[in-house]
Amino acid sequence: MQDGESHLGVGIGDFIFDLHLAAGNGLLDALDSALRHACTAPYLNPLMQCGNGAVSQLRRAVMLLMTEGTDATQIKILEKLLIPREGAVLRKPVQVGNYTDFYASIDHATNVGRLFRPDQPLLPNYKFVPIGYHGRASSLILSGTPVSRPHGQTKPPSADLPTFGATKQLDYELEVGVYVGTGNSLGHSISIESAEEHIFGISLVNDWSARDIQAWEYQPLGPFLGKSFATSISPWVVTMDALAPFRVPLAPRPSGDPAPLPYLSSPAGAAAAIDLKLEVHLSTQAMRDSAQLPVQLSSGNLRSLYWSFAQMLAHHTSNGCNLLSGDLIASGTLSGPEEGSQGSLLEISHRGTTPFKLANGEIRSFLQDGDEVILRGFCELPGLPRIGLGECRGIIAPPIAHTHE
Amino acid sequence: MQDGESHLGVGIGDFIFDLHLAAGNGLLDALDSALRHACTAPYLNPLMQCGNGAVSQLRRAVMLLMTEGTDATQIKILEKLLIPREGAVLRKPVQVGNYTDFYASIDHATNVGRLFRPDQPLLPNYKFVPIGYHGRASSLILSGTPVSRPHGQTKPPSADLPTFGATKQLDYELEVGVYVGTGNSLGHSISIESAEEHIFGISLVNDWSARDIQAWEYQPLGPFLGKSFATSISPWVVTMDALAPFRVPLAPRPSGDPAPLPYLSSPAGAAAAIDLKLEVHLSTQAMRDSAQLPVQLSSGNLRSLYWSFAQMLAHHTSNGCNLLSGDLIASGTLSGPEEGSQGSLLEISHRGTTPFKLANGEIRSFLQDGDEVILRGFCELPGLPRIGLGECRGIIAPPIAHTHE
Repeated sequence: MQDGESHLGVGIGDFIFDLHLAAGNGLLDALDSALRHACTAPYLNPLMQCGNGAVSQLRRAVMLLMTEGTDATQIKILEKLLIPREGAVLRKPVQVGNYTDFYASIDHATNVGRLFRPDQPLLPNYKFVPIGYHGRASSLILSGTPVSRPHGQTKPPSADLPTFGATKQLDYELEVGVYVGTGNSLGHSISIESAEEHIFGISLVNDWSARDIQAWEYQPLGPFLGKSFATSISPWVVTMDALAPFRVPLAPRPSGDPAPLPYLSSPAGAAAAIDLKLEVHLSTQAMRDSAQLPVQLSSGNLRSLYWSFAQMLAHHTSNGCNLLSGDLIASGTLSGPEEGSQGSLLEISHRGTTPFKLANGEIRSFLQDGDEVILRGFCELPGLPRIGLGECRGIIAPPIAHTHE
Repeated sequence: MQDGESHLGVGIGDFIFDLHLAAGNGLLDALDSALRHACTAPYLNPLMQCGNGAVSQLRRAVMLLMTEGTDATQIKILEKLLIPREGAVLRKPVQVGNYTDFYASIDHATNVGRLFRPDQPLLPNYKFVPIGYHGRASSLILSGTPVSRPHGQTKPPSADLPTFGATKQLDYELEVGVYVGTGNSLGHSISIESAEEHIFGISLVNDWSARDIQAWEYQPLGPFLGKSFATSISPWVVTMDALAPFRVPLAPRPSGDPAPLPYLSSPAGAAAAIDLKLEVHLSTQAMRDSAQLPVQLSSGNLRSLYWSFAQMLAHHTSNGCNLLSGDLIASGTLSGPEEGSQGSLLEISHRGTTPFKLANGEIRSFLQDGDEVILRGFCELPGLPRIGLGECRGIIAPPIAHTHE
């Protein structure tokens, strides 16, 4: 992007290949006009509507331009449209119409269930239904936007009556989201076999949560204001074809677990999961003041999901619900089975009952003002170029005085 | 509307005053240009953004045009822009970005709670928190659009394992929704005192529900596919100033109930409720085949709400969640304390355990294919013109074979 206008771009090393300028300078003239036109939009949505086949075509065209012998005029144009990443201002990549959040990590569901229902951590539906709920689309914010500590109504179990004030249990949730490419029309479903064709790409998502607000409000209709104050998304969207070398089968279900119902059964041998490494880092105000690097809170891998994104899409549309291009479908908090792989402070501090010490001696059970949470995700395999999802960052700002408008 | 283009209009008796044509013919030149321009949009959103003061101005200007002495040229123009209601094709009035559904009728919450938790019908948070959840915006449909019976995963308590198929417990929900006029920015809340200024107007909403899908999926994150296959909205939006003569105080809370926390306390004497009569009618295929009129299933009044729309808006934004112009905020199912005022079949048939007989001898516990549900709403008081919300209709179509796209 430049001139205050948002431009779409493809990340290549330390540069961004400006798709808008490329289309404007005739470098994409071999592509079909809808696809070329989509390259000049300020958001990815028109490109998403073109379908994954078209997106792969575009990717190949860009790679060709970057690698093939080109004449002096073309080199001059290429120099103009390769923008250094450093200094580029990144903006929200997608206009998200609808945001759905799943609960597809069985380790997360078990960890959280154990805190609230020690006798029955996993509810009877979990292994049959990819559990999900509608999130709030309006409060999706770009990585780097500060998150003001929200107010809300809370009632600790020890209190007789609820009170209203700033949350004392502010938390992050490490998630990965997929964006819908082509959608489906109302009344028709997306089959498990064709679900991947409807997924444009993936990003990092931090579904900030106020645990005390959530605990008091969530029955019987689920999370609401404990989540809807902010959800951060990373600026880069990695398309599915770029992830192809890192696709792996979903982990086999433990013996004794039911097989998914037919409408949720992936074709045999499908590489339904993604071998994507994930990390959560924390930078506190004190660390920044003393020029210390962020500390790692956890690490995990997206392949530990119990339900694949294809299963989530097939389930989501099994009742005929229509997905739109640009809709965001997130995994839910990603936790693994190992120690050190829990994707939220709720799990790490056991709902605040076991505060833990950071390397610099500070203590945390939930987030404090000035804390910056940094999510990172990347695919790497020997002999293959590393694919990074970039970062999803957010710093906790003090509560805004409860001012009204 | 005409010529295939959507036009905004004001309902006046048997006619629709075409705002687009009025603006185009210079009849609204006295109004500010943003307001005049909003009259030519195909949706109400730009008008909603102008604020309620501007909307009242527009309403007065239209009334003046219709009642004042006008010259022959003006009369000719007026004739052209008064479109007969009969024959007009109504379209979706608003582009809804976000849809929130509350649970603000205490009688409904109690009735439903009794079916699922006989020992504790109302959860401890109900009288403190206006309970709500995010609904699905993409599947909002206009009144008159058929509703295909959805498929889904269900598990009757008697079955060992869940199965996938068309719902056997399809239900309607009588609701009223408000549309957000001017919104609020992220991080800032709307005070209870100013909440009414942010409400543009009201419509009828039918939040279709598949009770068997909902019962199996809803824990712990709330309703999802049991609702997201379709929600019908009525084509007319009645603005708040038109409702002014019918505003009444919210029913006093029963003695012993807690007072709302300060952020949810309406100013003393506020007319926070609306005296709006509501009716649900059913027309079955057999009735239509024998030319019988629909039968009434229930009747109620919006004033029986436990939480007002102002309280819902103040609560919704209390964590800084941003509402956008055109967002839909629905009441949740409206039931009253009296027999015959339950706004869903779930309540009327006690979750299907007590089927009931219609006037023509047919039996119902949930909806059958071919059933048409008609919601009606109106305000009437002696000496005042009657204000109708029109109808919200939907006919149940057989399940679409589980075809995929």
